[in-house]
Amino acid sequence: MKATLEETMAKTTPPDSSFEHLRRDVMDCLRAATAAVEPAALVSDFLAARPELLGGESRVSVAAVGKAAQAMMSGARRVLAERIHAGVVIAPEGTVETGTSEDLEVFGGGHPVPNEAGVRGAETIRQLASDLGEDDVLLCLISGGGSALMTLPEPGLSLADLRATTDALLRSGATIQQLNCVRKHLDQLKGGGLAVAAAPARIVALVLSDVVGDPLDVIASGPVSPDPTTFTDALQVLAERELEASLPVAVRSHLTCGARGERPENPKADDPAFARSEVHIIGSNRLAAAAALARAKELGYETLLLSTVLAGEAREAGQVLATMGLEMLRSGQPLAPPALLLAAGETTVTVRGNGRGGRNQELTLGAALALEDADENLVVASFGTDGIDGPTDAAGAIACGTTAQRARELGFDPVRSLHNNDSHPLFEALGDLIRTGPTGTNVLDLVLVMARP
Amino acid sequence: MKATLEETMAKTTPPDSSFEHLRRDVMDCLRAATAAVEPAALVSDFLAARPELLGGESRVSVAAVGKAAQAMMSGARRVLAERIHAGVVIAPEGTVETGTSEDLEVFGGGHPVPNEAGVRGAETIRQLASDLGEDDVLLCLISGGGSALMTLPEPGLSLADLRATTDALLRSGATIQQLNCVRKHLDQLKGGGLAVAAAPARIVALVLSDVVGDPLDVIASGPVSPDPTTFTDALQVLAERELEASLPVAVRSHLTCGARGERPENPKADDPAFARSEVHIIGSNRLAAAAALARAKELGYETLLLSTVLAGEAREAGQVLATMGLEMLRSGQPLAPPALLLAAGETTVTVRGNGRGGRNQELTLGAALALEDADENLVVASFGTDGIDGPTDAAGAIACGTTAQRARELGFDPVRSLHNNDSHPLFEALGDLIRTGPTGTNVLDLVLVMARP
Repeated sequence: MKATLEETMAKTTPPDSSFEHLRRDVMDCLRAATAAVEPAALVSDFLAARPELLGGESRVSVAAVGKAAQAMMSGARRVLAERIHAGVVIAPEGTVETGTSEDLEVFGGGHPVPNEAGVRGAETIRQLASDLGEDDVLLCLISGGGSALMTLPEPGLSLADLRATTDALLRSGATIQQLNCVRKHLDQLKGGGLAVAAAPARIVALVLSDVVGDPLDVIASGPVSPDPTTFTDALQVLAERELEASLPVAVRSHLTCGARGERPENPKADDPAFARSEVHIIGSNRLAAAAALARAKELGYETLLLSTVLAGEAREAGQVLATMGLEMLRSGQPLAPPALLLAAGETTVTVRGNGRGGRNQELTLGAALALEDADENLVVASFGTDGIDGPTDAAGAIACGTTAQRARELGFDPVRSLHNNDSHPLFEALGDLIRTGPTGTNVLDLVLVMARP
Repeated sequence: MKATLEETMAKTTPPDSSFEHLRRDVMDCLRAATAAVEPAALVSDFLAARPELLGGESRVSVAAVGKAAQAMMSGARRVLAERIHAGVVIAPEGTVETGTSEDLEVFGGGHPVPNEAGVRGAETIRQLASDLGEDDVLLCLISGGGSALMTLPEPGLSLADLRATTDALLRSGATIQQLNCVRKHLDQLKGGGLAVAAAPARIVALVLSDVVGDPLDVIASGPVSPDPTTFTDALQVLAERELEASLPVAVRSHLTCGARGERPENPKADDPAFARSEVHIIGSNRLAAAAALARAKELGYETLLLSTVLAGEAREAGQVLATMGLEMLRSGQPLAPPALLLAAGETTVTVRGNGRGGRNQELTLGAALALEDADENLVVASFGTDGIDGPTDAAGAIACGTTAQRARELGFDPVRSLHNNDSHPLFEALGDLIRTGPTGTNVLDLVLVMARP
């Protein structure tokens, strides 16, 4: 973990209250969760435990792409050391030192909108893959953000075309599935393209999942996975998002030709390119959730995993989960306190106001209003595992039954704060933000509902 | 149960699919849930099991108020028979035969807006209560709707004033807590007023709860319960709902005088009127939920009660609960199939479109979209225990992973249906409505998430 998790001191609750006790335990669980998905350790542990994975004799080339690319590469080097024949890293610009050193080339790609360095990095990876023979192994280290960071436009398309397309899709509120469906049909390496380029080499991909449900064809746009989507699907996304007219002509024409059968579809599951490829999800929100639950058990809590695919409007998810916490206090169901209910996933925020916040803080504020009048022996906390919740310096927030009232005493109107998507100032004033700084990993969000007797 | 639950035949799925199997089991559980809260049986069973409750020798007078008043009265007569000295029923007009017969007077009150008959009924109950002595028992049978059905304006206020106030509050989107806070300060019997009128008689109240969390002071506006709210709270509600200016002058003046201390507040918990009163919740969504879970167990399902206080925007609650069902299929958590997760409570619908539906059907449609691509071995069903979901003839609906696709094949756009609050036509076309007719009881909604291996 790059940053140490720091507990924010509570300003408005007595230090030995049940709330403080729960806050300590929540932070303890979140620390365990984040540590469990530290990218370098995930890679080195995985490789060290499976010495047969890469074949005893093969030359190993490594392509690391995504927000955690640098850390995953260092984990691989820790285990493979001299066996690495060549390596390429594409990580977000500004977070890595770029350039060539010995056997490693590092590029600073653009995110969420691709840049020139990302294209150069993608071209380098394509070249590296194409040069491989049957006896070679390509180790792919894939993490979130890879779709934007590694961009290699199809012939006839420019980086500007892909930037415009990405930007338009992001603004339209497209889901990650929709966004990547389109991108996979405009790019040489996405949608299984890297696997095709690397054939006949063996491919081993280790994936840190930042997409709900861990869909291999969606995470980083599935460079070494079969693509179940088609050109027609991509056009359908543009139609749904009402973007047909606003995209560059070259993009529309490319997709239309593809849909008419004038270009080959991306490789499907039976493509020979995948005959010698294997993909392992080495880190996901399931792993983080399990670590949080295990830590809670050590602390004496009964635990229940409710979901790893949580979705929905943040404030409403907060309210629904809060009612399950209330039930624990009312009837000891679904668990009798001390107990932890955990839901992992990623909610969304429909922005209607102009305040500051993030989906985790907004979920927590929604929960706070539902918890009102409950005691301080029940908390709801929501936490982005990357340490960054929306455009704020917080990772999330924590609330109990007195949160709304304490906020009012400080001059806030919690209902109005929620209406205005303005959760951050409220939790900041209460001292109830969860602040960790960037954690260097990302497996979505964790929501903890924790109760003591 | 007044109406027999009837299963709608599925039109679009093969009869022996996993969906049909789950639908049968869901209906079986809902039947058990509804039967467990049948008002007449609840009253007669409760009284028969506690012969000491009403005192061996005392004269018993009965006041039955609410949508289930008639059924609860008949349950009481079944056990008490000749011991009933006098009885008054106020049930919704059109659902009962009004008039006087032997020892019973029946009134057809107005709901949700009060009427003259409700006022006459309330006056009759007040008179009955006032005539009681120390040796008498007043048995109150209280169910949902009682606030509107039994209305007795404070001196200086007219029925028209209360109708206007009720109507304005309902239109403003006030919660039941807010609505009843105001009504309790304009009415002689609400907010503990009936208990005051009946003193020094002993009061035994049996309550069928139709309010989330079973708050005694809110259900039917708590005629025999202490009122924790004040005139100032009532004015605060009007301010929040921006109704200060639009209500009748007499109402505003009444509340303002009260807030200035010129009228006595409603009786609080230490008032002697409650010294000889006891209130029993004899039916609630907890009881219905327990019956559904017990039936599911008999059918071989693992079960978990997630909440009895479910709240939130219906479609979002559906999505969140659906992700817990998906997790059961993915990892066998929180339960391994065959399993049932149950959440009871009442969601809300923010109406933005102009379609037809109800909160249960809308919840189910929200779930259907989240379940998309899951198999038919997972269903989400949402059901109003009164058998009436919104302004439709359905009680709710059921969905599985193929619901959205089957709807598309019939020409629906499920996303658009949801946007337009138009869930009813979609489920009707699919044959996936739950139709029971009015059940004669009401303990809010039940949401079942049921999975088979």
